[in-house]
Amino acid sequence: MERARQKAARLALMGFDVDGVLTDGMLYFSSQGDEMKAFSSLDGHGLKMLQRAGVEVAIISGRSSRALELRAANLGIDELHMGVEDKGALLTRLARQRGIDLARAGYMGDDVVDLPILRLCGFSATVADGHQEVLSRVDYVASRGGGRGAVREVCDLIIRAQDKWDAAMAEYLA
Amino acid sequence: MERARQKAARLALMGFDVDGVLTDGMLYFSSQGDEMKAFSSLDGHGLKMLQRAGVEVAIISGRSSRALELRAANLGIDELHMGVEDKGALLTRLARQRGIDLARAGYMGDDVVDLPILRLCGFSATVADGHQEVLSRVDYVASRGGGRGAVREVCDLIIRAQDKWDAAMAEYLA
Amino acid sequence: MERARQKAARLALMGFDVDGVLTDGMLYFSSQGDEMKAFSSLDGHGLKMLQRAGVEVAIISGRSSRALELRAANLGIDELHMGVEDKGALLTRLARQRGIDLARAGYMGDDVVDLPILRLCGFSATVADGHQEVLSRVDYVASRGGGRGAVREVCDLIIRAQDKWDAAMAEYLA
Amino acid sequence: MERARQKAARLALMGFDVDGVLTDGMLYFSSQGDEMKAFSSLDGHGLKMLQRAGVEVAIISGRSSRALELRAANLGIDELHMGVEDKGALLTRLARQRGIDLARAGYMGDDVVDLPILRLCGFSATVADGHQEVLSRVDYVASRGGGRGAVREVCDLIIRAQDKWDAAMAEYLA
Repeated sequence: MERARQKAARLALMGFDVDGVLTDGMLYFSSQGDEMKAFSSLDGHGLKMLQRAGVEVAIISGRSSRALELRAANLGIDELHMGVEDKGALLTRLARQRGIDLARAGYMGDDVVDLPILRLCGFSATVADGHQEVLSRVDYVASRGGGRGAVREVCDLIIRAQDKWDAAMAEYLA
Repeated sequence: MERARQKAARLALMGFDVDGVLTDGMLYFSSQGDEMKAFSSLDGHGLKMLQRAGVEVAIISGRSSRALELRAANLGIDELHMGVEDKGALLTRLARQRGIDLARAGYMGDDVVDLPILRLCGFSATVADGHQEVLSRVDYVASRGGGRGAVREVCDLIIRAQDKWDAAMAEYLA
Repeated sequence: MERARQKAARLALMGFDVDGVLTDGMLYFSSQGDEMKAFSSLDGHGLKMLQRAGVEVAIISGRSSRALELRAANLGIDELHMGVEDKGALLTRLARQRGIDLARAGYMGDDVVDLPILRLCGFSATVADGHQEVLSRVDYVASRGGGRGAVREVCDLIIRAQDKWDAAMAEYLA
Repeated sequence: MERARQKAARLALMGFDVDGVLTDGMLYFSSQGDEMKAFSSLDGHGLKMLQRAGVEVAIISGRSSRALELRAANLGIDELHMGVEDKGALLTRLARQRGIDLARAGYMGDDVVDLPILRLCGFSATVADGHQEVLSRVDYVASRGGGRGAVREVCDLIIRAQDKWDAAMAEYLA
């Protein structure tokens, strides 16, 4: 945990997976061809606070979906990358574009396809209900499940690790 | 708990947050641009009983949504306030309009953005799965999560605190 | 429990509430004016088995919804009664029409509005997450929550109480 | 468990039920006539890994639904059989077509209607929240519920039993 905090303290860029992380992993299919995903309002506010704290947020998903585009727009997140085959290569590119070391870029994912990027980046996190192979290999495992506040937990952890929590709370406790 | 009851006993107006309180916090986005929220039937009946017991109910949300408008209409709640930047100022205005002291106005919220209104009003409550910073600062924490009967618990608590429970149950136990 | 079995053994007609019993109580509202409910496939099969075992099934709800009409049609249940103000009076009428005593008619509900019918009928049941005032007044409390198999549990209980379980299972264990 | 592994080690064909297995059993009905099902992304990746490991995947359901057709297409599963009255007969036919013994064909189901096929096939599995009569009669009970990763657990178990796990993980741990 102390090691996780130290790693989180350096972050300038944090990437999040979608299905199972920003959602609880459920993919809703309708008889009329509609597809839905459910996102958490707690997570949404955490992502806003993380951005305000100076950490850039990126959404990096292997799947593509219109529902995700709508949610990302809703959160004001421009760095939305869908249908990504090689997440690690993408994060590396995003870091390089910003002139930062990969040690200052983190990722939160839940499944074995996320292992390459999780092992590559400077801070790795997963959800309480992530895959066993992931749970055993990341810096931080959230106490909540995907889509149930796990992302918020990680946002709060990063803000705290960067000693910006009191400043973030000041406007609510004035 | 005894303190929470004493505070709840005076209430003439009770405000409720939406995402994470009247819902479980999930925001459903569809590929066709539809947005959904899920409300609890248990909560709905509690809000009706609270109104019948003479406590006015207001819904105060930072977000706006057509789904919420439909649910509020469904419950016959006129005091629906969406897209509210300063919830505390709004509750203060609602109380003043009714000629009541803020000590007689309560609020139930789940996230840090709700802290100003929760610290301001006469009775504050949250859900079992609310944010840690909120859990530690309210008069009452429901045993159930948002959208899972937490609002009903608070409605029942207020009705009981005002010694109106037996009257409310009389019609069902005649 | 033994008392519940004895009461269930006589049933010829069993009524079920909808929100919180046949569903988990969630009412989904969409921005485009659609409303949804979620039913359990386990419950659906239980209702079919109960009918095959010779117990008539009725759905009795205080609310009306097109989604419920579709589900009832899907299950082949004709006795669908929606927007019912006085559930007890309705069950009494259904029993009289069939020439059976109210002791042979049961009901499963989850909220205080169901107390009159639950106290009136010959066998009363509720869900694990029902209202406290209901939990303490029924013959049987299911171990599962509404929409999560609670109805199936009650169907199985009735079939067993009527000594028809082995016959019902015979086709699956041939 | 050791017996389950031995049986899983021989599988060349694995069938999965839909409602309650590939989903959590919830059937969503909308007021506008739409029907929805929710599938798990964890399960989806497991089915892909199972296919890559050389085990053919079939979806065999008693119900028919357009939502399921869309999900199956999404997963690239051709062996989709809906509205099946006699699941055991179908699995027997699929095995015969492939020239394999029924001992090399498995099935995962959750309800009593699945008992005939589960008792017939070479490896039977169910979900944590399956029906009691099923829980007591299968080779393997997943620790997770339907639609919540139970299918993934079984996919992983089969891949491990066939000594193909390290090969499957190699691409993620390179």
